[in-house]
Amino acid sequence: MSEPLRIAIAGLGTVGAGIVKIVQQHGALLAARAGRSVEIVAISARSRTKDRGVDLAAYAWEDDPVALARRDDVDLLIEVMGGEDGPAKACVETALQNGKHVVTANKAMLAIHGQEMAIQAERAGVALRYEAAVAGGIPIVKALTEGLAANGITRVMGVMNGTCNYILTVMEETGASYNDVLKDAQDLGYAEADPAADVGGFDAAHKLSLLAATAFGAQVRFDNVVIEGIERITLADIENAADMGYRIKLLGVARMAQDGLEQRMQPCLVPAASPLGQLEGVSNMVVVEGDHVGQTVYQGPGAGEGPTASAVMADVVDIARGLVMPVFGQPADTLARPNASSAGSDARYYLRFSLSDQPGVLAELASILGRHDVSINRMRQYDHDGQAAPLVIVTHATGRPALDLALAEISALSACLAAPVALRIES
Amino acid sequence: MSEPLRIAIAGLGTVGAGIVKIVQQHGALLAARAGRSVEIVAISARSRTKDRGVDLAAYAWEDDPVALARRDDVDLLIEVMGGEDGPAKACVETALQNGKHVVTANKAMLAIHGQEMAIQAERAGVALRYEAAVAGGIPIVKALTEGLAANGITRVMGVMNGTCNYILTVMEETGASYNDVLKDAQDLGYAEADPAADVGGFDAAHKLSLLAATAFGAQVRFDNVVIEGIERITLADIENAADMGYRIKLLGVARMAQDGLEQRMQPCLVPAASPLGQLEGVSNMVVVEGDHVGQTVYQGPGAGEGPTASAVMADVVDIARGLVMPVFGQPADTLARPNASSAGSDARYYLRFSLSDQPGVLAELASILGRHDVSINRMRQYDHDGQAAPLVIVTHATGRPALDLALAEISALSACLAAPVALRIES
Repeated sequence: MSEPLRIAIAGLGTVGAGIVKIVQQHGALLAARAGRSVEIVAISARSRTKDRGVDLAAYAWEDDPVALARRDDVDLLIEVMGGEDGPAKACVETALQNGKHVVTANKAMLAIHGQEMAIQAERAGVALRYEAAVAGGIPIVKALTEGLAANGITRVMGVMNGTCNYILTVMEETGASYNDVLKDAQDLGYAEADPAADVGGFDAAHKLSLLAATAFGAQVRFDNVVIEGIERITLADIENAADMGYRIKLLGVARMAQDGLEQRMQPCLVPAASPLGQLEGVSNMVVVEGDHVGQTVYQGPGAGEGPTASAVMADVVDIARGLVMPVFGQPADTLARPNASSAGSDARYYLRFSLSDQPGVLAELASILGRHDVSINRMRQYDHDGQAAPLVIVTHATGRPALDLALAEISALSACLAAPVALRIES
Repeated sequence: MSEPLRIAIAGLGTVGAGIVKIVQQHGALLAARAGRSVEIVAISARSRTKDRGVDLAAYAWEDDPVALARRDDVDLLIEVMGGEDGPAKACVETALQNGKHVVTANKAMLAIHGQEMAIQAERAGVALRYEAAVAGGIPIVKALTEGLAANGITRVMGVMNGTCNYILTVMEETGASYNDVLKDAQDLGYAEADPAADVGGFDAAHKLSLLAATAFGAQVRFDNVVIEGIERITLADIENAADMGYRIKLLGVARMAQDGLEQRMQPCLVPAASPLGQLEGVSNMVVVEGDHVGQTVYQGPGAGEGPTASAVMADVVDIARGLVMPVFGQPADTLARPNASSAGSDARYYLRFSLSDQPGVLAELASILGRHDVSINRMRQYDHDGQAAPLVIVTHATGRPALDLALAEISALSACLAAPVALRIES
């Protein structure tokens, strides 16, 4: 058996404490699987005195995570502080400069700085791994870079924010409004006091940009992700979708199109009977389509102490076994910098309008859609009292640019009482 | 970039041809991902002249797969001939003796000879990999040995025979009988002319024994798998199960119990709303429970040219990248040889009896169950004409040994017109 792998942990929040627990509980198992023991040497966090429910006495302490990343007795740095810049970035860069492997759960940092960090790691001949940054405990980065390595990937999509899926699921189950469910989720600790990163889709978009880079052999382009949150989804949308055999999910989709990389994180309708449609609660799910394997589906917990620590430690075991491979599955200096696909692929859309109940409005709306070649597959006007008549239309497959032009014209009508809602149907 | 990895393929059936297609189509992609090119050097199959839809002119031909395994210009042998002994075994053993890596899709061979082959491979310092042997295109061996390596696995279970799942799904959808659906499946090519390996559970049991060894760090013990096929499942069973919120699946379950390794491949009831309960058609699904990650679920195509070739080539890419790890995730010479768990874990059971319609029978049956401490949770007697009254009982959690004693006594009653059916409810 080889020398122990000596690790340092920067950050002792929930995930950091979970990592310590795994190393302390499963020392023998990790050694048997890795072929060498994995030893925590040093740690760093904001507070040295906080009780984290684990015994830290055996580990050296550094107040400064950058000093931790410089220690001569450390082979591998685990970064679980979070934050796209600041100490997390400084400490990862220092570790790479000093020839240490890095394992991180930091999606925001990699979504912004992933390419430069990958170059740095590969030049230094060390590993930089991020299984925990995407879909928590699900080994999806490994599936993409290794398990499906013989495939050209044609599409990767997934539900990667548990908070949003929880809110949408509970709205459907209880008939409560978005705001009520969000408030409950905050009270229960499932949603942050400032929920923007979750419900606005930004957290999940970070993950999608990493998945897309990994799947398509391209540089991370978080700046090109089309992002839309779930804030405007109403109970009526959920019910209308269910009526037609769909469910609404905050869905990330990436696809390499002719004119560039399509990356979208937005609420979509998915068939209720599909794996994505059946996903309940806080679980995450990623669907990968490869040209030889077809469709494979991966489901599991997307967050939390145990799942995230499990993913971090899987990367550590790989490194202990000697696996050092390109960060995004192919050498970073060969990855193309993709443009954003301008149009994206065609799809059917669910449209909801709020119109004043007066003669001629429907004709006007239909004629605008027709002029932009958006053709109607189904239409329902729902019962209403008061002024605003809710109208739901499902289109035939159409391009988003044409649809957006049509919606802009419709929005300008005096009879259009609120901005239309347009949700893509991803089948 | 390093030297090319030179591979040989033994067997050019569907899967072998699929492998050739991937290498020919994705040469550049494989090289980018593996860091070196992957080149087919030589091939062997039964017929040299058969048209397989791929151009084989560039590859050396060997009539004898053992000679293929001995060639000096080969680094890695792919065995996709099948058969637990005979040429497949001879050629794998020869390759290992000659210091060549081996990738195989041969579940039957590894279920029987896996331990000795693992010892041989590890002594030779080469890889022996079998992702394609379990659940086709789903990278589940990788998930167990690598992605979840930081977990103690508490249970692994799955639907790993597409033919059986297809038959059970179609019976439920169409209301057709087992024999009719089996015949249709044979006509459509989904089931073999001799379906015993599929519907009898043996094929899936081979896979389960490999999963169990990998999950629990134990030697493969196919001989200890409890195997029961789906031949006795009736449409009534499926409908009764659905009535109570369950679906019937040919389910493999492995769990490390106090007294040994529990391995069962048998039809079970699973909750209809669970991922396993929602699985339709020929898809495979594996559910893994780890002590830190919780439950993760893997779904995809379990057979076929593309999926199986995808799994074979993922192993090849790993080896090209330099990954050589113990065959079952831990060194084979340290793996314990587990006993079979004698009792298995307690569970609720679905029981179906066929009783002659005469006074006192029910009381007698209930009293036998009671004497063996098998208590009744639900009971339904279904409408019937003629002599045989179908009675369905769902028990509270009970041990299988006690249940078997009770069922043996009930079977001996003159009023018991057919052997009782007992299906475990796996939740």
